[in-house]
Amino acid sequence: MTFPAKGFAALNATSPLVPFEFERRALEPTDVKIEILYSGICHSDIHQARSEWGPALYPMVPGHEIIGRVSAVGTNVTKFKIGDIAGVGCLVDSCRSCASCGEGLENYCEKGMIGTYNCADPKRGGLNQGGYSDIIVVEERFVVKVPENLDIKGAAPLLCAGITMFSPLRHWKAAPGMTVGIVGLGGLGHMGVKLAHAMGCKVVMVTTSPEKGADAVKLGADAVVVSKDQSAMAAAAGTMDLIINTIPVTHDVNPYINLLKRDATMVVVGAINPVEAVNTGAMIMGRKRIAGSVIGGLPETQEMLDFCGQHGIVSEVEVIGVNQINEAYERTIKSDVRYRFVIDMSTL
Amino acid sequence: MTFPAKGFAALNATSPLVPFEFERRALEPTDVKIEILYSGICHSDIHQARSEWGPALYPMVPGHEIIGRVSAVGTNVTKFKIGDIAGVGCLVDSCRSCASCGEGLENYCEKGMIGTYNCADPKRGGLNQGGYSDIIVVEERFVVKVPENLDIKGAAPLLCAGITMFSPLRHWKAAPGMTVGIVGLGGLGHMGVKLAHAMGCKVVMVTTSPEKGADAVKLGADAVVVSKDQSAMAAAAGTMDLIINTIPVTHDVNPYINLLKRDATMVVVGAINPVEAVNTGAMIMGRKRIAGSVIGGLPETQEMLDFCGQHGIVSEVEVIGVNQINEAYERTIKSDVRYRFVIDMSTL
Repeated sequence: MTFPAKGFAALNATSPLVPFEFERRALEPTDVKIEILYSGICHSDIHQARSEWGPALYPMVPGHEIIGRVSAVGTNVTKFKIGDIAGVGCLVDSCRSCASCGEGLENYCEKGMIGTYNCADPKRGGLNQGGYSDIIVVEERFVVKVPENLDIKGAAPLLCAGITMFSPLRHWKAAPGMTVGIVGLGGLGHMGVKLAHAMGCKVVMVTTSPEKGADAVKLGADAVVVSKDQSAMAAAAGTMDLIINTIPVTHDVNPYINLLKRDATMVVVGAINPVEAVNTGAMIMGRKRIAGSVIGGLPETQEMLDFCGQHGIVSEVEVIGVNQINEAYERTIKSDVRYRFVIDMSTL
Repeated sequence: MTFPAKGFAALNATSPLVPFEFERRALEPTDVKIEILYSGICHSDIHQARSEWGPALYPMVPGHEIIGRVSAVGTNVTKFKIGDIAGVGCLVDSCRSCASCGEGLENYCEKGMIGTYNCADPKRGGLNQGGYSDIIVVEERFVVKVPENLDIKGAAPLLCAGITMFSPLRHWKAAPGMTVGIVGLGGLGHMGVKLAHAMGCKVVMVTTSPEKGADAVKLGADAVVVSKDQSAMAAAAGTMDLIINTIPVTHDVNPYINLLKRDATMVVVGAINPVEAVNTGAMIMGRKRIAGSVIGGLPETQEMLDFCGQHGIVSEVEVIGVNQINEAYERTIKSDVRYRFVIDMSTL
């Protein structure tokens, strides 16, 4: 028996988000049913709702930064009980048989991860729908536990922005003694500052805006480099062990490559569209690297939440009601949010 | 007392190489004097002789793939004795005090390595001059021993082409069980095929030319992908653990990124000029990497020569006399050499 659900959906590429009624799938033996409490707004929600990342699937209920309370569990569920605070991120399924899935890197599933929304459900048919909604049903493997001490409003963005930054910091072994540059202070960047700081790194905020630089210091940055200041960029050349570049649009990465030490890596997490011509000569002369990274697998997402629980880390959020979603989209596009909108789903 | 020397030099950016007489520095206590037997022609010799890599220093005797016989040693020399076969590569000095020099990575000296030619001698004044010459005087730290079993004509290109490929293969841990792509079959690429094969990897030649592909198989490649063949490139997508990209000009790296497995690296060793726009989206979705690498430090260059000695690896060469240097430059530009010109310096 399916569950009637309410949400906000885009009906086509130019539609504002509107109230929408639909059905959630019936509870299967390994499923968890979650009453959604808060749902973050990620810039990628906007790209997908507007069909800017290839043809989108409508109607579309966006939302992949989902926090809620478990309200029912399938007969074979072992990790969750009714009343637990649970989280769902960007994916709700994967092939489970490829090498990546075998390593707990379901986000890199070789057959393609199954997205929380804007994605067909290959097993049951129909479209998956996301977190701007009152309930969701997800298999427990793809649900994470949220530490009790975290403010759940601020915890919602950890499911995407948090893991997007945590995973490359861990993969490239961010640790005390290292200087980590975070390029861009938005939803991703502000989580990067907090996480790298908690990992014991020296954190350098690289931003176009002195005001954002001052904000980054409050969030834990040890230093700020204003990227429009040529002399500051020159002074910072060759000083960074790791850079996480969150700029979400096509841009010139070469000024940031110059900030890397020999053998250091810049991880691009934001630029889905190609970056401009890359000065491989500068990379050659310093054995430097550019890498990509996308969110994280389920085990690492749980590790990230536990880490945030230990260090008391949540996102800086502005809580809105469902009737403010469309306005929040416009403000997100203008970077007019410090640093993430979270929808209070009780307003539905 | 300096040593009178003969060589072939470019006198300016448009000059053909012409006979040239000059002075080599006097033998200092830690110096080795080498009677040059063979000197390889690297494409970078041409770029520098023609001032294509920034303002060049003239007169310029090119040549950084130098093999010769030790004819004199300074009073403090411990590694060499008269009669030894010795090699000199791309650098003849470095600061020796930075972190890179401390790690034996003089090629990444933070103050800049001191080139074998097209470089001022910071200690003694004047210009360093390269291997298209009868003798050279170099401090022993920057001279390597050449295994006795190697054909010395074919060993000359190991000093640049060989180490340029060996270093990234070692750095990125090429080993049995790995599939290594070598992009481009020229002076660098043909050494990459031989070295990766000797390291026990499955070697895949990626080339525009089916004829070169057939050649690569003779050199040790296990498979060939003709890069103009879209279906072959699609079939090879996601199959490679490591790619060494030797293309020496601005190009589109994205088709090669598609060949990488998750977490795999493409090392660019040829493209000193920027490559075209990079599809970071594809890197993000597979946590893929692009890295640079330039030649190697002195300890690794010695390790490479010892490895080549153990495996009987030398470059495929066409031996020429000094009067053919200018013609060889034109043929090198047209890739009309399989796979490296080496100058017999006895023809001087």
